Amino acid sequence: MRARLLEATVDCLVERGFGGTSTTLVSERAGVSRGAQLHHFPTKNALVLAAVEHLTEVRGAELAAAAARLPGGPRRTRAVLRMLGDHFASPVFTAALELWVAARTDEHLMAAVAPLEQRVGRETHRMTVELLGADESVPGVRELVQATLDLVRGLGLANTISDDARRRGRILDQWADTLDAALAGSPSATEGKAS
Amino acid sequence: MRARLLEATVDCLVERGFGGTSTTLVSERAGVSRGAQLHHFPTKNALVLAAVEHLTEVRGAELAAAAARLPGGPRRTRAVLRMLGDHFASPVFTAALELWVAARTDEHLMAAVAPLEQRVGRETHRMTVELLGADESVPGVRELVQATLDLVRGLGLANTISDDARRRGRILDQWADTLDAALAGSPSATEGKAS
Repeated sequence: MRARLLEATVDCLVERGFGGTSTTLVSERAGVSRGAQLHHFPTKNALVLAAVEHLTEVRGAELAAAAARLPGGPRRTRAVLRMLGDHFASPVFTAALELWVAARTDEHLMAAVAPLEQRVGRETHRMTVELLGADESVPGVRELVQATLDLVRGLGLANTISDDARRRGRILDQWADTLDAALAGSPSATEGKAS
Repeated sequence: MRARLLEATVDCLVERGFGGTSTTLVSERAGVSRGAQLHHFPTKNALVLAAVEHLTEVRGAELAAAAARLPGGPRRTRAVLRMLGDHFASPVFTAALELWVAARTDEHLMAAVAPLEQRVGRETHRMTVELLGADESVPGVRELVQATLDLVRGLGLANTISDDARRRGRILDQWADTLDAALAGSPSATEGKAS
């Protein structure tokens, strides 16, 4: 029942935004009585905070499953980036975006969202380094991995305004090739000696 | 008086978010009578939509002014990227973010926000191409410029959760060097033949 309530909260966030999400709406959508809902989560913030935690697990499991299906070989970087791009264009990203923006002007929400985001960010970074086989002891490589994750976050935001899949695909393929060249050890790309 | 109301709307969006913005609050903050405010903008949506337009002009003027102060020489790309990064970390970006997220679940707002965003996006792209001296007739260059703008958008979003200036600086400096190497014509970086 708890999981049903949390899934319904995420669905509500995606469809109606943070402002349009209410405990009444969530209990209706989850098919859970108002009393039972109030027992588990007495307030909207308690519900939304628990949904953030749940969301984090969903995000992690989704990414791990997608990562396990990735091919090897010369097109691997493109596949890794397309996977990350799809992830940041999914409803899970949209729900997280609603929370981030709500937390920006709600200090109680922010106190819970900020450390969670840090934890998820570190985990996603670690996984990306592993998937790309990147060597972060080489100067500049850590920043290029971070840039890759900030890029997919930006693409995720663009995708909430209009369906952006084709443009995203082209950009990520080009980024993958540029990243491969840089990670292959061109000093100009990784040590700041470009002309 | 109109400009005062619109500036106050932007300030309200930044401080209290879309949900916390009201016409009453805006007229108080602007020091404009409720009657005069209602005369100019009869509804919250009318006010916010006009503020989006106003915001667009502010964004354009801010960027043009910053662009005119940029140095030439070998560090120019770093300077261009730092300027874009600062712009997407400014309150103007934050107010726009509030609007984008509100528009995601409000079709009337979206009908006005989407074409405006397209227009601003095209203008920012055009300016970035010019500032970088990039040749978009070379395969891959257009996508690298787009990626650069999606990267700064992602960095802008990260900055709303915590002050991210130092991390952003390191990432953008590294990307500037990688971008310079790619734009200098390494075939592996611009034509997808990386190993």
